[in-house]
Amino acid sequence: MASNHILLITLALISISRISFAFDSRPLQDFCVVDSTGKAPCKDPNLVTADDFLLTGFDRPGNTSNPYGSATAFASVATVPGFNTLGLTLARADFAPNGYLPPHIHHGASEVIVVLEGEMEVGFITSYPEYKYYSKVVRKGGVFIVPVGLLHTVRNVAEGNSAVVVAFNSQNPGFAFIPDGFMAAKPAVDSGHLAEAFKLDENTVKDLQTKMWF
Amino acid sequence: MASNHILLITLALISISRISFAFDSRPLQDFCVVDSTGKAPCKDPNLVTADDFLLTGFDRPGNTSNPYGSATAFASVATVPGFNTLGLTLARADFAPNGYLPPHIHHGASEVIVVLEGEMEVGFITSYPEYKYYSKVVRKGGVFIVPVGLLHTVRNVAEGNSAVVVAFNSQNPGFAFIPDGFMAAKPAVDSGHLAEAFKLDENTVKDLQTKMWF
Amino acid sequence: MASNHILLITLALISISRISFAFDSRPLQDFCVVDSTGKAPCKDPNLVTADDFLLTGFDRPGNTSNPYGSATAFASVATVPGFNTLGLTLARADFAPNGYLPPHIHHGASEVIVVLEGEMEVGFITSYPEYKYYSKVVRKGGVFIVPVGLLHTVRNVAEGNSAVVVAFNSQNPGFAFIPDGFMAAKPAVDSGHLAEAFKLDENTVKDLQTKMWF
Amino acid sequence: MASNHILLITLALISISRISFAFDSRPLQDFCVVDSTGKAPCKDPNLVTADDFLLTGFDRPGNTSNPYGSATAFASVATVPGFNTLGLTLARADFAPNGYLPPHIHHGASEVIVVLEGEMEVGFITSYPEYKYYSKVVRKGGVFIVPVGLLHTVRNVAEGNSAVVVAFNSQNPGFAFIPDGFMAAKPAVDSGHLAEAFKLDENTVKDLQTKMWF
Amino acid sequence: MASNHILLITLALISISRISFAFDSRPLQDFCVVDSTGKAPCKDPNLVTADDFLLTGFDRPGNTSNPYGSATAFASVATVPGFNTLGLTLARADFAPNGYLPPHIHHGASEVIVVLEGEMEVGFITSYPEYKYYSKVVRKGGVFIVPVGLLHTVRNVAEGNSAVVVAFNSQNPGFAFIPDGFMAAKPAVDSGHLAEAFKLDENTVKDLQTKMWF
Amino acid sequence: MASNHILLITLALISISRISFAFDSRPLQDFCVVDSTGKAPCKDPNLVTADDFLLTGFDRPGNTSNPYGSATAFASVATVPGFNTLGLTLARADFAPNGYLPPHIHHGASEVIVVLEGEMEVGFITSYPEYKYYSKVVRKGGVFIVPVGLLHTVRNVAEGNSAVVVAFNSQNPGFAFIPDGFMAAKPAVDSGHLAEAFKLDENTVKDLQTKMWF
Repeated sequence: MASNHILLITLALISISRISFAFDSRPLQDFCVVDSTGKAPCKDPNLVTADDFLLTGFDRPGNTSNPYGSATAFASVATVPGFNTLGLTLARADFAPNGYLPPHIHHGASEVIVVLEGEMEVGFITSYPEYKYYSKVVRKGGVFIVPVGLLHTVRNVAEGNSAVVVAFNSQNPGFAFIPDGFMAAKPAVDSGHLAEAFKLDENTVKDLQTKMWF
Repeated sequence: MASNHILLITLALISISRISFAFDSRPLQDFCVVDSTGKAPCKDPNLVTADDFLLTGFDRPGNTSNPYGSATAFASVATVPGFNTLGLTLARADFAPNGYLPPHIHHGASEVIVVLEGEMEVGFITSYPEYKYYSKVVRKGGVFIVPVGLLHTVRNVAEGNSAVVVAFNSQNPGFAFIPDGFMAAKPAVDSGHLAEAFKLDENTVKDLQTKMWF
Repeated sequence: MASNHILLITLALISISRISFAFDSRPLQDFCVVDSTGKAPCKDPNLVTADDFLLTGFDRPGNTSNPYGSATAFASVATVPGFNTLGLTLARADFAPNGYLPPHIHHGASEVIVVLEGEMEVGFITSYPEYKYYSKVVRKGGVFIVPVGLLHTVRNVAEGNSAVVVAFNSQNPGFAFIPDGFMAAKPAVDSGHLAEAFKLDENTVKDLQTKMWF
Repeated sequence: MASNHILLITLALISISRISFAFDSRPLQDFCVVDSTGKAPCKDPNLVTADDFLLTGFDRPGNTSNPYGSATAFASVATVPGFNTLGLTLARADFAPNGYLPPHIHHGASEVIVVLEGEMEVGFITSYPEYKYYSKVVRKGGVFIVPVGLLHTVRNVAEGNSAVVVAFNSQNPGFAFIPDGFMAAKPAVDSGHLAEAFKLDENTVKDLQTKMWF
Repeated sequence: MASNHILLITLALISISRISFAFDSRPLQDFCVVDSTGKAPCKDPNLVTADDFLLTGFDRPGNTSNPYGSATAFASVATVPGFNTLGLTLARADFAPNGYLPPHIHHGASEVIVVLEGEMEVGFITSYPEYKYYSKVVRKGGVFIVPVGLLHTVRNVAEGNSAVVVAFNSQNPGFAFIPDGFMAAKPAVDSGHLAEAFKLDENTVKDLQTKMWF
Repeated sequence: MASNHILLITLALISISRISFAFDSRPLQDFCVVDSTGKAPCKDPNLVTADDFLLTGFDRPGNTSNPYGSATAFASVATVPGFNTLGLTLARADFAPNGYLPPHIHHGASEVIVVLEGEMEVGFITSYPEYKYYSKVVRKGGVFIVPVGLLHTVRNVAEGNSAVVVAFNSQNPGFAFIPDGFMAAKPAVDSGHLAEAFKLDENTVKDLQTKMWF
C-alpha cells in the first residue's frame, strides 16, 4: 500500500520541485481595524488610534499549571484589532518542564519560533520524503522555521521552564490539534472507525473519547 | 485549558467571520506541460500534443485487497503532464466493505466528492465551532464538499463496494495522514511524548511505531 | 496582419515560458456558508449543518430534449451554500447523440472532465502556438483537462448518450458562450460590425440575432 | 434551455455579489529583467540598465492598410525586457475609418482604454445580467474600462482615424479572438459542429475556414 | 554599517533572484460597481449602465499654477465607480517647465508612463544593487516602467509643458510622498529624530515642519 | 494643491474601505530549501536536513558602535536556506541609547515588533487620514504592528539599550530607507531637483549627497 502511495507522491514531487514559488500580499487600504460595533468591515479610519495596534504583557510568563504544562498568549486580530487584514499572528508560549503542545497542523501559515528561555524540541514530518521527521533541540537564542501545512511537535526538553515567541504569516493560521480533534469531536466520530484507523481496540478509543482534550 | 483556548479562537472568528473571501488564479501561459527531460520548466509548446492532457482508465475499480480496503488512482501532474500549473487534481477511490482512508488533512485544497457507487460516510472537524463533527452518509449521486485544511474522515458504509471521484483545487493538495504520520515517522518521534499527547501508555505507542502505516 | 501578430505573441511567450507558475488559495475561516437571509457575508457558524455541504441527484441524467441535446446540473455556490469561498464548482452534463455545448471560455478556471458514459470530443484552441486545436475523443473512464481561459469545444460523438462530470477550480468559473454572447446581446451589437468580424453578410447576421441562443 | 441556464447563473451571482474583492501582487525582487541569453530566469541585476525599462515610438501611428484597418504596438515583456514580472502590458492601437479589432476576450486582465484621437465604440457583454451589452462611444480624452474575462468589441466610429492607448494589469493578458480562433484553428474544428454551434450551414463554415483570419 | 547591510541584502537577492515570478488576479463577478448608497458592496448589476465605466476629459491639461508646477487627474475607483475590483488605476499628469511630483513610492503597484508631450526625467532607486539610480529622459512617445515599491522621481525637463498618462496595476497603488510624509505628519514626528535621520540641524527640520507639503 | 489631493484620496478610500481583505499563501511543495550550488531552484529534498531550518545566536546583542547606534541580524532566506518560499523573515535589532533605524518603508510586508528590552518609539504615517502619525512608546513586553507599505520610524527612547524581535510576512519585505536612498543614490539624483523636493538649498543637498548613509 505504502509503496504505491510513495510512488505517486514521488512522481508528483519530482515534477513540482522545479517550481520555486513564494508569495506575499497586501490589503487595499492602509489598515482595516476591526470595528467593534460589527456594523462595518473596518473601523472608521478617523477613529482609529495608535492603541489599536498595541498589545502589552508579552514579557509575562503564562500559567502552565495545567495537564499540558503550557500556556499560550496571542497578539492577533482576536486581541489587537489593528492586526486585521495584515497577514500576521504572533504568540508567546511558556512551558513547564515536560510541557508541550499537542501535535498539530497550521494549514494556513508557516511559523517561525524564537526560543527566549530554555530548550525546546521542535520537529515536523514531511509528505516527501514520506514521513521523514526533521527535528532539532532549539536552545535560547535559536530560531527554527516550520513549513506551512506540516504535522509538527513542540515540547520543552529543558530541566526548567522554556519560553518562545512564534510568528505566523497569516491572521488566522488554522489550528488542527491531533489526536485531540478526532477524540474530542462532537458528535463523536464512530469509535470503530477510529479504532481501525488508529490501530487501537475500540474500548481504548471509547475511553479516549471521554477524556478532556486540548 | 480548553475553555481559554476556545475563548481566543472564538474572539478571532467573530472578527474574521465578517470576511467572505475567495480566490482563483491562472498561469501566465496557455499551459506549461511538464518537461520529461527536466531541462526546462515547461515542455516546448510546439512539441505538446493533446495526449499530454489525457488519462484513461478512471472507470476501472482499483484493487482494494489491502489492510485499508481502499485504492486510489490520481489524474494529476504526477500522471498527466498537462496538469502542471493548472491548479487541479482528480482522484478515483474504491472501497471494499468497511474500507476507508486514514483520517487526514489537505492543507492546500478543498475537495469535492461525488459518490459513483455505494454509500460513503464523509465528515470533517472544525476549529470553530471547536471540534464539531459535520458528517453525512453520501449515497450514489451525492456530492459533498470538505473545506481546505480541516481534519476529515472517509469510509465505506455500504454493504458492498463503493466508488467515488474526488476533485481538489490544487495541483498538490498536500496529504497529512493521521495518526500515520506520527507513528510512521523516521527517525521516530519520541515515544514518551507521543504517549502523553495521545493519552496512551508508552508501550502501546512503541508497538504502534512498529506497524505498517498507510 | 497575422504574421506580425504571431511574431509579437511568439516573442512574449518565449520570455514567459520560463515561468512555471501555479497557485492555490484558502479562505480565512473554516467555511463561510452563504447566509440565505442576505444579512451577513457568512451564515452564523453555529447554525451551519452538514446539509449545507451536500447535494444529491448527480446520478440522474438531465433532460436533453432541447435544441442543444444537452443538459447541465451544477454543484456550486448556487445550489450548495457551503461551496462559498472554497474555490470549487462541479457539474454533471448529459448529452443526447450529437448533443453539444456551445463553444465557450471560462476565464476564471481550468476544468477537468471525466467521461462517465459514451464518447465525447473535447478540444481547446491555444494562443501560442497560434490557433492550434488540441482535441481528443475521450471515452468512458477518460479524463481530460482544459487550461483556463482557452476557447474549447465539447460534443457527444457516441452513437448513444454520453455523460460527464466536470470540476472547475473556482466558485465562479465564468462562462462566455460563443457565438451566443455576440448574437444574443441586448441591446444588439451593430450588425454591420458583426458581419465584418464574422465575415458574413449583414442579413445573415441580422437573422442570427433573432434566433434563440443558449 | 436559456431560462434554466439564466436561473442557475442568477442564483450563483446573487450569492457571489456580496463579495467585493480585489487583488494586487508584487514580485520578490526589485525587478527581474528577461535574460536574453535564456540561461537564467532574470538578467544579472548588475548588468541591467535603465534602457531595459524604456520603449520609444508610441507617438507614431501604425500602418492600418490591412483588412482590419487597425494596427497595434505593444510595450510588454515581448518588447521591453524590464516588464517581466511587473504585471503590466501597454498597447497603442490605430484605426482607419471603420477599422476594428476582432471581438475578443482577455482572460487574464482587465483593460482600460484612453482615446487619443477620434471616436471609438467600445462595448462588453456580461454573463450576469445575461448577455447584456454595455457600450459607449468614447471620444478623444475619454477613458473606458473593460472588466477581465468579458467578450468585448472595439471599433472606430469616427469619420477619420482614431488612436488609443490601452493598459492591461497582466504581463500576458491572454488574447482569444472570436470567431477567428474557431475558424482558423489547425487542425480544423469539425465543420458540422461549428455549423450547428454558429447556426450556419456547413458550406458557409467550410468557406469561412479557408479565409485569412486575424 | 552599510557594507554589512549590503552583504545581507546581496545574499538574500542571490537566492531570490532565481525566482521569476508574476501574478494576476480576477474578481468573482463580472464587475462590482461601487454602490453610491453605501448599502451593499456592489451596485445592483441590473442598475449598472455603461456610464459607470466611463470618464471624459483626459485630453484636457490640468492647472499647473501651483508650487509643484504639476497637476494630476485620476481615472480610478474614486472617479469611475466601475473601476472597483478591476485592479487598475489610470492618471494623467501635466507639468509646467520645471514641474515635478515629490519623490514617492507606490507600495501596491508597478506603474508604466507614456509621455504625450514634452520630455520627462523618470528614475527609480533600487535596493539591490544598493541605491542604484536608473533614470531616463523620456521624450514624446516614450514608455517607461517603474517597478512596484521603489523610490522614484518624476520631473519635467522640457523647455515647455509636458504631459503623461500613467497606468497602475492596482485600484489603490498606495502613495507615500517623500519627504512630505515625514515633514507634514500630524502629530509631528520628533524633530530631533528627523534631524538626525536626515542629517540636518534641528532648527532646519522645525522650519520644514511648518511648510506646506504636497 | 494638497486639498485637491486629499479629496481624491478620500473619495478613493471611502469606496475602498468597505473591502476588508486579507490573504495568505503557500508553496506547492513541503519546502524548497535554497540549493547552494545554484543548479536547481530547490535543494534535493533527500539531502535536506533539520539544520537547513535552524539559526542560532538571536539572544546575542549586536554591535551598536556605529553612527546609527543600532545593529540588525536576520533570520531569513539569506541566512537560513530553509526559509525559501515560506513567506517569513525574522530580525533582531539592538539599539544603544538614542539609536535608531533610518525612517523606511517595507513595500512587501507588514511587520510586528516585540520589545525584549528597553523602550522603543515606533510610529507610522498613513495616506488616509492624510499624513497622520500613529506612534507609541512600546515598553518591554509590548507588541506593535506596522501595516505594509507605510512610512515608519523606529528609535530607542530608553535611557539604556533596547532590543526587539521583528517578524515580516514575506521572505523579502523590501527595504526603502529614507532619505538615505535619495541622498546615496549612484549616479546622483539631480541636486537641484532634490533641493526643490526637500525644500532645502542646493548646497545643503550637495553636501548631504557626500555623506555616508545607511
